[in-house]
Amino acid sequence: MGCAPLGHVLFDEFLRFNPKNPAWFDRDRFVLSAGHGCMIQYALLHLAGYNGVKMDDLKTFRQWRSRTPGHPENFETPGVEVTTGPLGQGFANAVGLALAEKHLASRFNKTDMKVVDHYTYVILGDGCQMEGVSNEAASLAGHWGLGKLIAFYDDNHISIDGNTDIAFTEDVLARYEALGWHTIWVKNGNTGYDDIRTAINEAKGVKDKPTLIKVTTTIGFGSPNKANTYSVHGNALGSKEVEATRSNLGWFHEPFHVPDEVKRHWSRHIDEGASLEAEWNARFVEYEKKYNQEAAELKSIISGELASGWENALRNYTPEMSPDATRNLSQQCLNALAKVIPGFLGGSSDLATSNMTLLKKFGDFQRDTPEERNIRFGVREHAMGAISNGIAVHSPGLIPYCATFFVFTDYMRASIRLSALSESGVIFVMTHDSVGLGEDGPTHQPVEHLFSLRAMPNILMLRPADGNETSGAYKIAVLNRKRPSVIALSRQKLPQLRGTSVDAVSKGGYIVSDDSSGNKPDFILIGTGSELEIAENAAGELRKKGRTVRVVSLVCWELFEEQPEEYKESVLPSEVTSRISIEAGVTFGWEKYIGQKGKAIGIDRFGASAPAGKIYKELGLTVEHVIAAAEAL
Amino acid sequence: MGCAPLGHVLFDEFLRFNPKNPAWFDRDRFVLSAGHGCMIQYALLHLAGYNGVKMDDLKTFRQWRSRTPGHPENFETPGVEVTTGPLGQGFANAVGLALAEKHLASRFNKTDMKVVDHYTYVILGDGCQMEGVSNEAASLAGHWGLGKLIAFYDDNHISIDGNTDIAFTEDVLARYEALGWHTIWVKNGNTGYDDIRTAINEAKGVKDKPTLIKVTTTIGFGSPNKANTYSVHGNALGSKEVEATRSNLGWFHEPFHVPDEVKRHWSRHIDEGASLEAEWNARFVEYEKKYNQEAAELKSIISGELASGWENALRNYTPEMSPDATRNLSQQCLNALAKVIPGFLGGSSDLATSNMTLLKKFGDFQRDTPEERNIRFGVREHAMGAISNGIAVHSPGLIPYCATFFVFTDYMRASIRLSALSESGVIFVMTHDSVGLGEDGPTHQPVEHLFSLRAMPNILMLRPADGNETSGAYKIAVLNRKRPSVIALSRQKLPQLRGTSVDAVSKGGYIVSDDSSGNKPDFILIGTGSELEIAENAAGELRKKGRTVRVVSLVCWELFEEQPEEYKESVLPSEVTSRISIEAGVTFGWEKYIGQKGKAIGIDRFGASAPAGKIYKELGLTVEHVIAAAEAL
Repeated sequence: MGCAPLGHVLFDEFLRFNPKNPAWFDRDRFVLSAGHGCMIQYALLHLAGYNGVKMDDLKTFRQWRSRTPGHPENFETPGVEVTTGPLGQGFANAVGLALAEKHLASRFNKTDMKVVDHYTYVILGDGCQMEGVSNEAASLAGHWGLGKLIAFYDDNHISIDGNTDIAFTEDVLARYEALGWHTIWVKNGNTGYDDIRTAINEAKGVKDKPTLIKVTTTIGFGSPNKANTYSVHGNALGSKEVEATRSNLGWFHEPFHVPDEVKRHWSRHIDEGASLEAEWNARFVEYEKKYNQEAAELKSIISGELASGWENALRNYTPEMSPDATRNLSQQCLNALAKVIPGFLGGSSDLATSNMTLLKKFGDFQRDTPEERNIRFGVREHAMGAISNGIAVHSPGLIPYCATFFVFTDYMRASIRLSALSESGVIFVMTHDSVGLGEDGPTHQPVEHLFSLRAMPNILMLRPADGNETSGAYKIAVLNRKRPSVIALSRQKLPQLRGTSVDAVSKGGYIVSDDSSGNKPDFILIGTGSELEIAENAAGELRKKGRTVRVVSLVCWELFEEQPEEYKESVLPSEVTSRISIEAGVTFGWEKYIGQKGKAIGIDRFGASAPAGKIYKELGLTVEHVIAAAEAL
Repeated sequence: MGCAPLGHVLFDEFLRFNPKNPAWFDRDRFVLSAGHGCMIQYALLHLAGYNGVKMDDLKTFRQWRSRTPGHPENFETPGVEVTTGPLGQGFANAVGLALAEKHLASRFNKTDMKVVDHYTYVILGDGCQMEGVSNEAASLAGHWGLGKLIAFYDDNHISIDGNTDIAFTEDVLARYEALGWHTIWVKNGNTGYDDIRTAINEAKGVKDKPTLIKVTTTIGFGSPNKANTYSVHGNALGSKEVEATRSNLGWFHEPFHVPDEVKRHWSRHIDEGASLEAEWNARFVEYEKKYNQEAAELKSIISGELASGWENALRNYTPEMSPDATRNLSQQCLNALAKVIPGFLGGSSDLATSNMTLLKKFGDFQRDTPEERNIRFGVREHAMGAISNGIAVHSPGLIPYCATFFVFTDYMRASIRLSALSESGVIFVMTHDSVGLGEDGPTHQPVEHLFSLRAMPNILMLRPADGNETSGAYKIAVLNRKRPSVIALSRQKLPQLRGTSVDAVSKGGYIVSDDSSGNKPDFILIGTGSELEIAENAAGELRKKGRTVRVVSLVCWELFEEQPEEYKESVLPSEVTSRISIEAGVTFGWEKYIGQKGKAIGIDRFGASAPAGKIYKELGLTVEHVIAAAEAL
């Protein structure tokens, strides 16, 4: 990062934070989007007095279990807001943080009292600017008029492959203006401290637009031989060049030595931060007296504590109730949860009416109605995911959901992974979850997506079969605040099955029906989602033929794996090897549960454009096929 | 699609094509990026005389096995250049097509004779414009000055969620100007045929920049009650409104009836196309006489036929040779292949010096040096994938490769999937393929990516262990022209193993070493990539203890699955259930090969920032752990 002065000015003069309570609610948020300048961030956190970043931590940069990993990780280092490194993500996270601020400010601030009032700052580099996700996020930030978002573009014109002019010659400021941003150019970012201060103040004056401040810098500034070359991007200077740089900059202290005057100067943040928080706390006491209801909601958002009994809002279903698409049942859950959880909000990437994600009680979050909770992301899945991550890490009680067609998790996979890695409990609402969507054809039909997400650490992949399991999936998703959930939902109608239940979902896998005794059925049929119905129907036919059959729903593999061995054995007894799985996706991975002797029925190819029933029939996802497979075992 | 007139003008007046030979090399390329107006495309293909699109095909729109699927698929319908539907992809494909044209034109055209000279046209909608991938691709197209790329932006201000102003209020033309494009606005796209013609001619006049023509249209134009509403986006009009629309537009023919005068008018394309191709063929005969060497290369690019013995360029390795990172060995392959394959070209998303992808014999493909073969994609993985797909479908002999860190396949997964679906044999060169990359930490360490790609249909996931397997992986990748390959490569050095071979890779899995007899070793250790070395070393230790051990390399699961049962049984005899797999990634999925009694050693969590050796040790990817696991079986 060439813009150490910028980090310095920001941390030392502009950021409102409390080093002794990095989680203080109304702090300014600071995101280092590229992540590569993280050593400067760690050093600033240390200087500012964050307990978790000691000098010894700085000395163990990039070592096993250190608090100073090679890219900033929110779960490792106090004061790091979001995990960054993959380019463009942090910038989009910052848009989410700024959205959260604008939303909460407009919901909770009163003309006589402000309880939400902070800026979001983000530093991004050339790499972030090139990534599509940053353009998506910038377009939304401009559309929403996020006036308290201030982005610094570290324009050092060097990326890993050398001078950026080999691949990046666009006019960045003109692009941001086209996206509705205010722009400023600081031409000397190396030493122009006053220019940086002036620019930040100008940006704060522009209240209806986000601001991009292009700060032209020299990468490796101060290094006599390596400044302005790509060799400083990812590599250390080397001891000789370090010496030359120190000499050039007139810095003659020992490594890792902080002179007393610097310590003194920075230590003031400890008291200042404490008094900022104390002031806010005092104000909130007043607020609570005057605005009791709002204060209760805001406290829930700040703490993440939900009103007891919130889960009762989720409905139970009985087999007599009408068949319905799980995407519709999902909408009932979303609306029910938004009523009882004050920080529940979200939206879709231009598929609200297909994903069924509109909250009926609320209007659209827009530039002039930011208190509303339906977010319109446009066709920008990737930014949607990253913005949702930003919302989630803003406050423990903000529970964002975001939606698209399941197949388009491919567009946002990088942000889904960061949600999992950075423990941001976003709810990913993914409808049209199989070839069951029919005519749109293979480009729109997920077949490998269940497995590609089951393979990802720290994320729950839920595929409910009916109303009970959909309610159960949402209950799990809300409870898992440190682990995101992907809920795969059908476009087509599904019956309310006998034997499913809301609570059973928490075990990940369970027995839906069984006519055997002694934990030893002739067959175990395992289904998920829309195919659980087929398993049930096939079981019915097999039972008519005198066979004992157990039907198991494996709605969430991760949760099932976490159950005690006895429970797993009670559901899938090792003795019973005649097992058949049915799922409208690739069969790869099912060996885990069906064993070497079982049979997996699925779709080991891309889908096709045709009516859904026809596709199911042609691809063998039928009761007849399950029966034939059982009889052939 | 509101812009039927645009499609009409393009097909009828501007496109150079030959309906009787849709694959004619020097045709103009036409891409319908959004894919939703595909019925119009099918109708135009039919009118223009493409054999594969009969009236009966139009009547089976979106039916099982029809040639008129719900989104255009290049493998279903003659005349459809690329598979589109997922938004933004087709636009980026078009950039790849235009890149291919510019590259080939500059390599092969002579001052006295042009043999490559066509335009690339693409229609994209609001949705495509919102997607980040289109901004990435547009930035590159502007940077490269692709003057023969003409994009039409169907500005109908309606997307699935209604009026685009709920999420999309940027100034699109200003953004494209910032990206280095020429822009034109046709304000009446509904009936302004002349304006469209004028705009296309103006665009053709601008030779140093791509052109974006914004064509403002009314969605559902002509429908008295549904025009300009989102209900026409994905839904049929309904019979009553169809009647009203027909009446409104004064079209009183039966459904699916083409009046004779229309037939006559359009049928001229059959002769015209044939004569365009004949002219070109005659020119090429002259060209071949004068420029024999170039003609041979171009013929290879047009036909996809490679010079015999091309695979001999790939090196064999022996255990005495130095250990090396497979990313370095990969660079040797890339350079060797570029010498013998005239259509071999590619690059990296700003990681050329890390991915080791530079072709030393060639310079950079740039605006003024388009004859060169190193493509600098900048940090734009998603567009890189989609552009590479476009290059691949331009001509059978163009073999593009593209590179980034393996973990960032997440950024480009949508385009990798389309490569697989549309049978575009791109080579995805993915280095830094595990926690072995070390200090950059979990954001940069793929753990679930092998499985997430093994789950995808029609793609080869190759993870070579050393020089021989790297050469073998490239041989396979080049041979598979209808199936893309992902080659996962190490950052760290690996030894040249005894028992590996270039040819064995074609079987996907094979025995690397075995000291048993009778196809019945005590243990089978299965490894891939960098962990095959660990398997070999563990086998050595176990053999010292008197156990018989077989080591199997499973370099490509897909290819192994395609082998005859006897071969598979000969490598992994069912009788031997004491199996251990070792791979630096999630263990999920290994049940397939190790069975219920085996043990999978891997990483079922995210990685960490630390030196690579330390991570391997802490996570148990060690010889000691394999031995202990074997002894515990």
